Amino acid sequence: MGLDNMKVRGFKAGAVASGLKKDGKTDLAMIFSEHEAVAAAAFTTNRVKAAPVLVSQENIRDGKVRAILANAGNANACTGERGMADARECARLAAESLKISEDEVLVASTGVIGEPLRMELLKKAIPGLASSLSPDGFPEVAKALMTTDSFPKESMYLGEAEGKTYLIRGMAKGAGMIMPNMATMLSFILTDLAIDHDRLDRALKSSVKTTFNRITVDGDTSTNDMVIVLANGEAGNETLSEADYAAFSKGLERVMEDLARMIVRDGEGASCTFQVNVTNAASASEAERAARVVANSCLVKTAVCGRDPNWGRIMAALGRSDIVFDERDVDIFIDEVRIVKGGLAEGGDAEKEASGRMKKNDFVLRIDLKKGEFQDRIYTCDLTHDYITINADYRS
Amino acid sequence: MGLDNMKVRGFKAGAVASGLKKDGKTDLAMIFSEHEAVAAAAFTTNRVKAAPVLVSQENIRDGKVRAILANAGNANACTGERGMADARECARLAAESLKISEDEVLVASTGVIGEPLRMELLKKAIPGLASSLSPDGFPEVAKALMTTDSFPKESMYLGEAEGKTYLIRGMAKGAGMIMPNMATMLSFILTDLAIDHDRLDRALKSSVKTTFNRITVDGDTSTNDMVIVLANGEAGNETLSEADYAAFSKGLERVMEDLARMIVRDGEGASCTFQVNVTNAASASEAERAARVVANSCLVKTAVCGRDPNWGRIMAALGRSDIVFDERDVDIFIDEVRIVKGGLAEGGDAEKEASGRMKKNDFVLRIDLKKGEFQDRIYTCDLTHDYITINADYRS
Repeated sequence: MGLDNMKVRGFKAGAVASGLKKDGKTDLAMIFSEHEAVAAAAFTTNRVKAAPVLVSQENIRDGKVRAILANAGNANACTGERGMADARECARLAAESLKISEDEVLVASTGVIGEPLRMELLKKAIPGLASSLSPDGFPEVAKALMTTDSFPKESMYLGEAEGKTYLIRGMAKGAGMIMPNMATMLSFILTDLAIDHDRLDRALKSSVKTTFNRITVDGDTSTNDMVIVLANGEAGNETLSEADYAAFSKGLERVMEDLARMIVRDGEGASCTFQVNVTNAASASEAERAARVVANSCLVKTAVCGRDPNWGRIMAALGRSDIVFDERDVDIFIDEVRIVKGGLAEGGDAEKEASGRMKKNDFVLRIDLKKGEFQDRIYTCDLTHDYITINADYRS
Repeated sequence: MGLDNMKVRGFKAGAVASGLKKDGKTDLAMIFSEHEAVAAAAFTTNRVKAAPVLVSQENIRDGKVRAILANAGNANACTGERGMADARECARLAAESLKISEDEVLVASTGVIGEPLRMELLKKAIPGLASSLSPDGFPEVAKALMTTDSFPKESMYLGEAEGKTYLIRGMAKGAGMIMPNMATMLSFILTDLAIDHDRLDRALKSSVKTTFNRITVDGDTSTNDMVIVLANGEAGNETLSEADYAAFSKGLERVMEDLARMIVRDGEGASCTFQVNVTNAASASEAERAARVVANSCLVKTAVCGRDPNWGRIMAALGRSDIVFDERDVDIFIDEVRIVKGGLAEGGDAEKEASGRMKKNDFVLRIDLKKGEFQDRIYTCDLTHDYITINADYRS
């Protein structure tokens, strides 16, 4: 898009290798807003919340943030009182180096659960990191966040409000433990738009719902998920009309959608991605449930790995999803190729054609329930040998 | 146990190769009771029910059955009106050959979904099968039921009531699409005990709940599951005391437990089995839900494949299971080795020792929530490369 060099005015960022990752790659990232930024966030719904999630929930309460400190290589989850003290100490160290207040810092972690953070490494690394921040440092943040991710994830949107251009710049990490209410997923999104807290929060919540909360890799939900949006107002718009707000909200959703799709594309071991689209369900919640059950079915996902339009497994998954439908009504499509009509095999070359579509490595699996007028969609990937290889390895 | 030659008096069985399985193996089995038998059954809870499930549900309504006809290689599911007609025709053909009434026959199928039964093959095979039945034919039934199963599954229990010995003889097939409310699972259990329908039904339901409904391989529930118990009274007991009923019920549960464990042991691609045991939960339903979520977590199952006591993944799965607990209370054990105490790593050599236990290839993963006094357990297996290989193959 040629946007790579675009700057979000007033933000700086950077990353260093603190030693938390054993391979010497960068693992500690910082984002800094030169002026106070309005902040909104969504956190994991897992009952077991990592210490940085709890600390960030405290520090974001007033809706004002100046910095984010994030590490990869250690989740600081299931680490008890010590973990809480360590997460607070991280915020304090970042605040000290940046000469801001401790409660203006959000902290995020991703990596192994259950091991204490090696604070001596962080203590050493944070001051140098803070002094090396630059307006061009965002790609470095995306790289430092990577754990089993195979590529860094970034997306941008350029908008205009009151004749002033503004940028939305987002970065994220995936890749396993990805389900419903977010993922082992960290996403930081920055914008120089001026927007009040209520509207920023509303835009974040509605966008998360249709993007990050509509993906799944393996049905597991992590202890550390968070999506943070900071808006520092440097674009200079004095007000924000409803139309401009709507455009911003749409732009934010596009950035999140981009990042969410990258997370699925980079799902552990994934060889292809697909969207499970359930249409004409009896209710919104049934549409969502049916799409989730199909998208998480190991048998459907392994069939997709074999590029087999095995619709019997899809019907079986629908049948256990606890929704109201009549199998005699169901039509199933791979892209526009119908493979099931009225609950029965379409016949002819339909399945062969469908298998061909699946080889594009990104397709839509649409299920028409013909029961009502609600629909939902979940974006997911196949289940492959590489998923097993990645996850059956003893923690290293 | 030396019980292999034991006969369930008054029952005969056999199997033939009808041609439904492409490799020429036996695929059509029949069980016949010389006299009317009392029958009880449990069927899949999947909303999409195969034609043989619907037909058997009709034919068992009066609680009397004389025969079971089962085929492997084709599930006769998602086959519409034609499938229903075919399932009824199967019952009619079996009845005709056995000179009994059509509604005394139960039918069962397992195999590919969505393809019509090749009735010409069955029409040809059924008469010969009916005339070849023998009191020693049960192992043949277990073999003919196999699809991706790697071994036939049989179990027996010898009991005594009123001074008369009776036998409970069961057979089953597994192996994928195995979850909650049964599996791609067929199980036929025969006994010569005399027992009334209500008590047989009660014994079946309570035993299914603690056995077949407490296993999972991959979280998928099939369209074809059924467990059938037939009791023909040939043992000659005139009455059945409460104590003798209790002993029978226990014996039935033991046979089902045996078969259920074999199904998990033979789970597609499984390299080991383990029991997820949740203790001291706040309610019975929370104990069950927590055990199911952990037992179905892809990340837990792949960790087990690597014999890694990765308790962080266990905590994360608990945290998304929607149960009430405090992570600071949780203890986790592999057999008797505690790896988590009060939500934190036990430390020392605990994990190394636990990994050693996991190498036994059958172990107990116990989670103590310290929240109440309820417990439940789910028996499951790991998730391996072979599961992917088996299921990512294009249907053949």
